[in-house]
Amino acid sequence: MLPTKNRRIVLKSRPLGIPEAEHFAIETADLPELRAGEFLVRNDFLSVDPAMRGWVNAAANYADPVGIGEVMRSFAAGEVIASRHPGYAEGDRVMGMLGWQEYAVTDGKPVRRKVLETDLPLSLSLGILGINGVTAYFALTEIGQPRPGDTVVVSTAAGAVGSAVGQIAKIAGCRTVGITGTPRKVRACIEDFGYDAAVDYKSPDFELALAEACPQGVDVYYDNTAGRITDAVVRHINKGARIVICGTASVANWEPWPEGPRIERHLLNKAARMQGFLIWDYEHRYEEAVRKLANWVRQGCLQHREEILNGLELAPGSISSLYRGENSGKRLIRVEYI
Amino acid sequence: MLPTKNRRIVLKSRPLGIPEAEHFAIETADLPELRAGEFLVRNDFLSVDPAMRGWVNAAANYADPVGIGEVMRSFAAGEVIASRHPGYAEGDRVMGMLGWQEYAVTDGKPVRRKVLETDLPLSLSLGILGINGVTAYFALTEIGQPRPGDTVVVSTAAGAVGSAVGQIAKIAGCRTVGITGTPRKVRACIEDFGYDAAVDYKSPDFELALAEACPQGVDVYYDNTAGRITDAVVRHINKGARIVICGTASVANWEPWPEGPRIERHLLNKAARMQGFLIWDYEHRYEEAVRKLANWVRQGCLQHREEILNGLELAPGSISSLYRGENSGKRLIRVEYI
Repeated sequence: MLPTKNRRIVLKSRPLGIPEAEHFAIETADLPELRAGEFLVRNDFLSVDPAMRGWVNAAANYADPVGIGEVMRSFAAGEVIASRHPGYAEGDRVMGMLGWQEYAVTDGKPVRRKVLETDLPLSLSLGILGINGVTAYFALTEIGQPRPGDTVVVSTAAGAVGSAVGQIAKIAGCRTVGITGTPRKVRACIEDFGYDAAVDYKSPDFELALAEACPQGVDVYYDNTAGRITDAVVRHINKGARIVICGTASVANWEPWPEGPRIERHLLNKAARMQGFLIWDYEHRYEEAVRKLANWVRQGCLQHREEILNGLELAPGSISSLYRGENSGKRLIRVEYI
Repeated sequence: MLPTKNRRIVLKSRPLGIPEAEHFAIETADLPELRAGEFLVRNDFLSVDPAMRGWVNAAANYADPVGIGEVMRSFAAGEVIASRHPGYAEGDRVMGMLGWQEYAVTDGKPVRRKVLETDLPLSLSLGILGINGVTAYFALTEIGQPRPGDTVVVSTAAGAVGSAVGQIAKIAGCRTVGITGTPRKVRACIEDFGYDAAVDYKSPDFELALAEACPQGVDVYYDNTAGRITDAVVRHINKGARIVICGTASVANWEPWPEGPRIERHLLNKAARMQGFLIWDYEHRYEEAVRKLANWVRQGCLQHREEILNGLELAPGSISSLYRGENSGKRLIRVEYI
């Protein structure tokens, strides 16, 4: 017996900065019958990502914004429970842009991949084997280009992307320094994710601690925050340093662009590079990264943490608390079915 | 009869920003006799370069600063007039870090190269076939990576580096847009250096004119200025744009770093790259660039302009007026001998 109703989260109003619970509504809609070429996915896990801020903001960004009244765009992972599509069969596990909803009727275009790592939990396909891990892998290796002996500094170091970056840099033979926001996360950096050093950016000694953690300067800075954390790190870069811009979590609003220290002269003096990373540019190499990451997970040299919120109704408030640093690992919504 | 006296320009006091005439003194010193392994160069041309600001500032930079009382560091080109060095013979033409002085006694280490293009004027080895041209060539091709059809924007577009960049980009099949500071230089961009469009950053319509000159956006920005000119260009960059930081001529003082709009989010959204260029990193490939540039000069597809000041005594004030944009082409001092 296939479901006929679909609970889903829609965008109610457009936030200027970080979306709060009030910007979303939960509603129940009828599920249409499958047409030829379509299949039905039951979402088991919905993803909560910092990038979702950009997806609901009106400003020009790397994708068109979600429309008012539309289902909130998100990655999700689930199982095909009915199919009239030749490429997908009942029981297939898939992940893709299936949205914050229980069920997705799709022609397959929003599906990013079939999840083939059947020996590993499905939720990993939204985290360490998903956008987070694949982003960490390509942004670090392709833009950061870490070499053995390099000092690699990572902001939001205990987060879903940052924790993977630190560990991949370690696998590459680097000294790793994590920047994070609480003493608990500093401990997680050292104990769970193997950083050589970790510093708390909320500490009054932050700048001194950062300098002491990087006695040889900084060769790669993997930046998930922008803002004053970045300002502090940039002063320590070595000649030829690579700064990977992967996120800007510490800046709540970019309209208008906030002011900060000009770094052109410093980049020139250091012949350094600052480059933005968009995962979409590496779409065609996704499986290459997943294979590497999955093997590291199986070998036990790539740890990850998940924080699973149970129930669709927790989704609307889950982005803003992510920006407040309240999560402990990759945040997911587990959809509960009766 | 070899000379026994040497007139030279020494650094008298350390400027905070741009060096003015008052920071230098002119003095006459005895020329020491040549020892084994040394040779004597008579400087015919001394170079005046924006980078000299950095060479006299105390701030950490890409080279140690010139000491108080020392001969001002500079490129110069001249002829060997006596030699006790096996690698250099009387009559050889050389260019290198020979300083703002009439004569240089050297063991050859400051010499960058023998000037082998005997069919072309010696002064070119300090401009279009010197650091300026070689910088333009490597910074544009290696960091800017222009592709046919790209829009390439150049600041200080009529200057010694910028004018070469615009022409090399044109040879590479790009649309070229020059930014410069007077109507006369705008004309020079179009008439002398073949830019497809040129805009005056001092005009009240600058931002509008820039947008109109770049209907397809900006793929490569070759930046010699930093500051508000750069702020205006950066807003027009396309996905995957490359920003080459080659100079920061519009910002008089970098201590402390001035403030400006934060560009991290924009670089991220555009997956764009901003990278500093130091010619020293390409030292080993210098002759490769000179060969290409010299051939373009001979073929008539690479124009250049020189502004020659006659007399060593004009050197001290020549840097600051360069920053005021008062030059018309690569500025050189011709040393006059009685």
